[in-house]
Amino acid sequence: MKYQFFNDYSEGAHPRILERLAASNLQQMTGYGEDALSLQAQALIQEAVGNSKAAVHFVSGGTHANLLCLASMLRPYESVIAATSGHIHVHEAGAVEATGHKIEAVPSRDGKLRPELLHGLLALHQDEHMTKPKVVFISHASEVGTIYAKAELEALYGFCQQHGLYLYLDGARIGSALTANASDLSLADIAALTDMFYIGGTKNGALLGEAIVINNPALQPEFRRHIKQRGALLAKGRVIGAQFLELFADELYFELAQHANRMAEQLADGLQTLGFDFLTPPQSNQIFPILPDTAIEQLQQEYGFYVWVAAGEGMSAIRLVTSWATEEQAVQAFLEDARGLA
Amino acid sequence: MKYQFFNDYSEGAHPRILERLAASNLQQMTGYGEDALSLQAQALIQEAVGNSKAAVHFVSGGTHANLLCLASMLRPYESVIAATSGHIHVHEAGAVEATGHKIEAVPSRDGKLRPELLHGLLALHQDEHMTKPKVVFISHASEVGTIYAKAELEALYGFCQQHGLYLYLDGARIGSALTANASDLSLADIAALTDMFYIGGTKNGALLGEAIVINNPALQPEFRRHIKQRGALLAKGRVIGAQFLELFADELYFELAQHANRMAEQLADGLQTLGFDFLTPPQSNQIFPILPDTAIEQLQQEYGFYVWVAAGEGMSAIRLVTSWATEEQAVQAFLEDARGLA
Amino acid sequence: MKYQFFNDYSEGAHPRILERLAASNLQQMTGYGEDALSLQAQALIQEAVGNSKAAVHFVSGGTHANLLCLASMLRPYESVIAATSGHIHVHEAGAVEATGHKIEAVPSRDGKLRPELLHGLLALHQDEHMTKPKVVFISHASEVGTIYAKAELEALYGFCQQHGLYLYLDGARIGSALTANASDLSLADIAALTDMFYIGGTKNGALLGEAIVINNPALQPEFRRHIKQRGALLAKGRVIGAQFLELFADELYFELAQHANRMAEQLADGLQTLGFDFLTPPQSNQIFPILPDTAIEQLQQEYGFYVWVAAGEGMSAIRLVTSWATEEQAVQAFLEDARGLA
Amino acid sequence: MKYQFFNDYSEGAHPRILERLAASNLQQMTGYGEDALSLQAQALIQEAVGNSKAAVHFVSGGTHANLLCLASMLRPYESVIAATSGHIHVHEAGAVEATGHKIEAVPSRDGKLRPELLHGLLALHQDEHMTKPKVVFISHASEVGTIYAKAELEALYGFCQQHGLYLYLDGARIGSALTANASDLSLADIAALTDMFYIGGTKNGALLGEAIVINNPALQPEFRRHIKQRGALLAKGRVIGAQFLELFADELYFELAQHANRMAEQLADGLQTLGFDFLTPPQSNQIFPILPDTAIEQLQQEYGFYVWVAAGEGMSAIRLVTSWATEEQAVQAFLEDARGLA
Repeated sequence: MKYQFFNDYSEGAHPRILERLAASNLQQMTGYGEDALSLQAQALIQEAVGNSKAAVHFVSGGTHANLLCLASMLRPYESVIAATSGHIHVHEAGAVEATGHKIEAVPSRDGKLRPELLHGLLALHQDEHMTKPKVVFISHASEVGTIYAKAELEALYGFCQQHGLYLYLDGARIGSALTANASDLSLADIAALTDMFYIGGTKNGALLGEAIVINNPALQPEFRRHIKQRGALLAKGRVIGAQFLELFADELYFELAQHANRMAEQLADGLQTLGFDFLTPPQSNQIFPILPDTAIEQLQQEYGFYVWVAAGEGMSAIRLVTSWATEEQAVQAFLEDARGLA
Repeated sequence: MKYQFFNDYSEGAHPRILERLAASNLQQMTGYGEDALSLQAQALIQEAVGNSKAAVHFVSGGTHANLLCLASMLRPYESVIAATSGHIHVHEAGAVEATGHKIEAVPSRDGKLRPELLHGLLALHQDEHMTKPKVVFISHASEVGTIYAKAELEALYGFCQQHGLYLYLDGARIGSALTANASDLSLADIAALTDMFYIGGTKNGALLGEAIVINNPALQPEFRRHIKQRGALLAKGRVIGAQFLELFADELYFELAQHANRMAEQLADGLQTLGFDFLTPPQSNQIFPILPDTAIEQLQQEYGFYVWVAAGEGMSAIRLVTSWATEEQAVQAFLEDARGLA
Repeated sequence: MKYQFFNDYSEGAHPRILERLAASNLQQMTGYGEDALSLQAQALIQEAVGNSKAAVHFVSGGTHANLLCLASMLRPYESVIAATSGHIHVHEAGAVEATGHKIEAVPSRDGKLRPELLHGLLALHQDEHMTKPKVVFISHASEVGTIYAKAELEALYGFCQQHGLYLYLDGARIGSALTANASDLSLADIAALTDMFYIGGTKNGALLGEAIVINNPALQPEFRRHIKQRGALLAKGRVIGAQFLELFADELYFELAQHANRMAEQLADGLQTLGFDFLTPPQSNQIFPILPDTAIEQLQQEYGFYVWVAAGEGMSAIRLVTSWATEEQAVQAFLEDARGLA
Repeated sequence: MKYQFFNDYSEGAHPRILERLAASNLQQMTGYGEDALSLQAQALIQEAVGNSKAAVHFVSGGTHANLLCLASMLRPYESVIAATSGHIHVHEAGAVEATGHKIEAVPSRDGKLRPELLHGLLALHQDEHMTKPKVVFISHASEVGTIYAKAELEALYGFCQQHGLYLYLDGARIGSALTANASDLSLADIAALTDMFYIGGTKNGALLGEAIVINNPALQPEFRRHIKQRGALLAKGRVIGAQFLELFADELYFELAQHANRMAEQLADGLQTLGFDFLTPPQSNQIFPILPDTAIEQLQQEYGFYVWVAAGEGMSAIRLVTSWATEEQAVQAFLEDARGLA
């Protein structure tokens, strides 16, 4: 095996993160996320999102963040709207439903939601025989690698506010999304254009950890109770606090994401040059080139990646994911080997 | 502040654990706990519990372990029996109930459950108007620092098997319990005398992490689905795998617990010498001496600890917790300062 | 068998109720409780509770009413306070917990809750490690036959309002409670002194059905969605609407309860005359005389009733329940037979 | 208004049912469905389904039956497969999800499920990141009026058994389905070809009530506990027992359904003669003719019915539902008035 493009969590943590953990290791600190490191990290994130009143909470994983955030926003009869490709709808084992809530799924070709996709659903869900949609769930970057433009997010959030819906953004790969070439959004924009979202650490250089950011003041009270009840309140909250402290101490969080994007871009450019098409436009650190099945089989001898979906006669889309740790020579080797199969 | 005896998770991780994390940091590994480190750690734990067929799974925290393990064992109408002092009944914010199950609480003076405390409950819960008790939940060490003797655990597990009940053991502090002076139980005994339990890492030197051990083969299938659905399946499962690998590579896990016990013993012996009584017999790394409220106030100037419960005219029981990282000089300082107040 | 004093739902419905059902039987009506009969019944109940803004909803049974009302009032981390003898805590098979909420139980000798019983619980439940109590659940009459005086209910509701708690009243036997000799409460008082309660039909002459009354306007919106989601929205809502229309068309509801009380009073007076004591003061249509076990065995040859609890050497409390349909001669026969055993 | 074709629960109960309720009204009977009437009704249904070992339980409504039956068959991580038009997916307000389970929806043009529609779903749901499908939910008649042929049900059940899936059938309109002209299925066939189903009373002449039939012995134990926990155990179980006793005392249940079908057939034949098309083939007591919107508006002056879905330029499908109580003259009047608009 030369390299695995399976995902962006194949490696451990950026070395600076391990150093930060070691530096404070023997200091006694308050438990449950009320330690000095977590408080400093929260302050840095408040600054980064441009909202000193934002509530910031750290949890260990993305599915956990999603189920607890969504359940915290909902009354029993309320539901979540998501794209049919949404991670919560497909790949979280019914975690949201296990909290008692239905996901109302809306087809979307590029994995993104837009107001025009939601009108029909809202028009239908009028009485007590149907769930009452209350939260719109989006991922940025989406599950198929696409990203929202600022105008798109403004339109969607405007629509949500007009219809009494909350907008929640799964930011497992928000670093990659925000540092993409095509991006015109900042972290502060995200905060201003959602009610709640999370900044993914696991897929961008942390050992583990996600930072939930709650911008809507109505959703802030008692959030620690939700965290505790779902089993997400870590005794040593400092472990995640310290990591986000390092990631946001300077531009590290964005630099790591930029590197991942650059590697994905090299892959995409190279494959395009070789004449390959893509399932969705390559925009972030997940790209979906369409290759002949014979080439895929060859490449799988030396590289790890998922075959995503059949894409016509003898062709399939594959998913290649790069990370903060992907080395340029792995990318070049892949392109080299692909060239022979084009 | 001289030292905090608040709990056993005030410090970070034992240095060997940080080293282990660093050593494998840049290797690419499979996600979701199927990496080489996790597999090795599982094998070591299977060996330590004397059951090569035991299923071992890693999660990030104790409340999370409890809610997911208990829910995995229950049909909707089934309930959990616990002591009224049980952690799940008092200090987990209704996490078990949030999975849909009632806890039937039984008073117990020393925090331990015995067959004679359960007879009445079972006799009562006969028809469909009441829940059907299915799991007995115990903590070892208990929430008030007491530990089970082997004969006690045998009697309890025999009773459970006779009545079609599962026995689940919360091992957040199992290291301290097993290495206590009064202990005649081994980890293999625990495995043989329960259906499911977890080995606590967070409170015994890990950054975070608990190892769930499922001995009863009937409870093993599809457990990863439970883990995923509750949001407990970590993308970088290696982070916890590596830590347990280090803890069980040799006797480190038990040495850390022994140290904590030794520190608690010094505290207990010293306080006893000073003439103080205890709420429950000091057996593990949590002790509950009864002090005059005036002395407590004085000591709180320099030491961190919780006041547990009023214990007669002008007296209260306090909780002192020691850890793998507690230094002997902190213990001696506390005793010194207490001597002046006796 | 001469007569069964097991409960107040051994017979069918009062004949006037069957007549009312028959009278409108072939008329086509709107479904789901929006028919003319239900609307009229709602208006009559609004009048009876002295609140034209009260929301009134009909469901088929008491456990269903309790689980749906309580869940409708709670955020995920919130809990219900109930007496340890509370029906929801003991005899509803974990129905409330199945909606995700813990019941925090408080011991009470007479089955009633008072502010002084709640102080300690509230003082303890301060942080996110414990549930946040939000609803106080009481039964009127209680599960052991006792009733609240107006001053008691005022004190309790005042306490609730002061502490941000809702007060919910299970009125399965509210008819008997309100028409008891000792009662100084009216239905309008109940409405003014609770946030939500239900008026029991099943145990007071209806075929089946309970009328949920929501006085607190903050709890009224979207309640039909809760009803539907819990499976409680009947297609032929008219079936329950018609029954409550008849029960509240005049004083029928109260007359039926008064009859049950009169029969219980005759039983209690007769047994007192025979020298028997009671577990709790006989106030409503459930009484708990304490009899020798030998006498109980004899009486069970000819009468149906539950043995409630052991009450000293060779004695037990039994439960005798009378209903709208209990005939005086059954009462007299029981007393006659008991006399021989005194 | 001349007549409402909104649904089949607009009228009360068949007169024989009211008589049966009155006949036993003042007899004292055991509570919670263990009375003589319920036991007799259960025996009659066991006979009708050709399985003396079938478990039979009565509950008050269809959504309640669905949520409790489905939840009783599932482990937490398991899901239900349903057609996108399935009642539980669209019109039950998230009731199944509120018990913690996801519905995996499969598009189907005629509202029926077939093995070929399920292959892809099962192939996809292999690991712990997705739910594990466990129950296939079908309605007979379906939500768009279509019915299963015996060969279709055999194929589907065979597929389910081969893949470890349970088959559950919502029989809200099973009477109409089984007595349809096109039907080659008997009640005994349904019992033999499903694991659990319910026989709808509410939509076929009862005041209220559904009879759950559990054929698979593995699913029978402790079912009363599920019923109680969901709030579905009626104190006066006799109320539903008596009704099913009357419905199955002779052929009444089927005669009522046949009448409804005959009325629907007359409507369908008449509309066909007038040249109107249908959304789905008219087979049971729900038919979906496609009419000009102008005609629909006219007919709505005198008849009640739902407009179902737009069906091309200026045309819509409407839903007409007939019942045991629909009179032929209402049908003729509708056809008469439609003729003028054709």
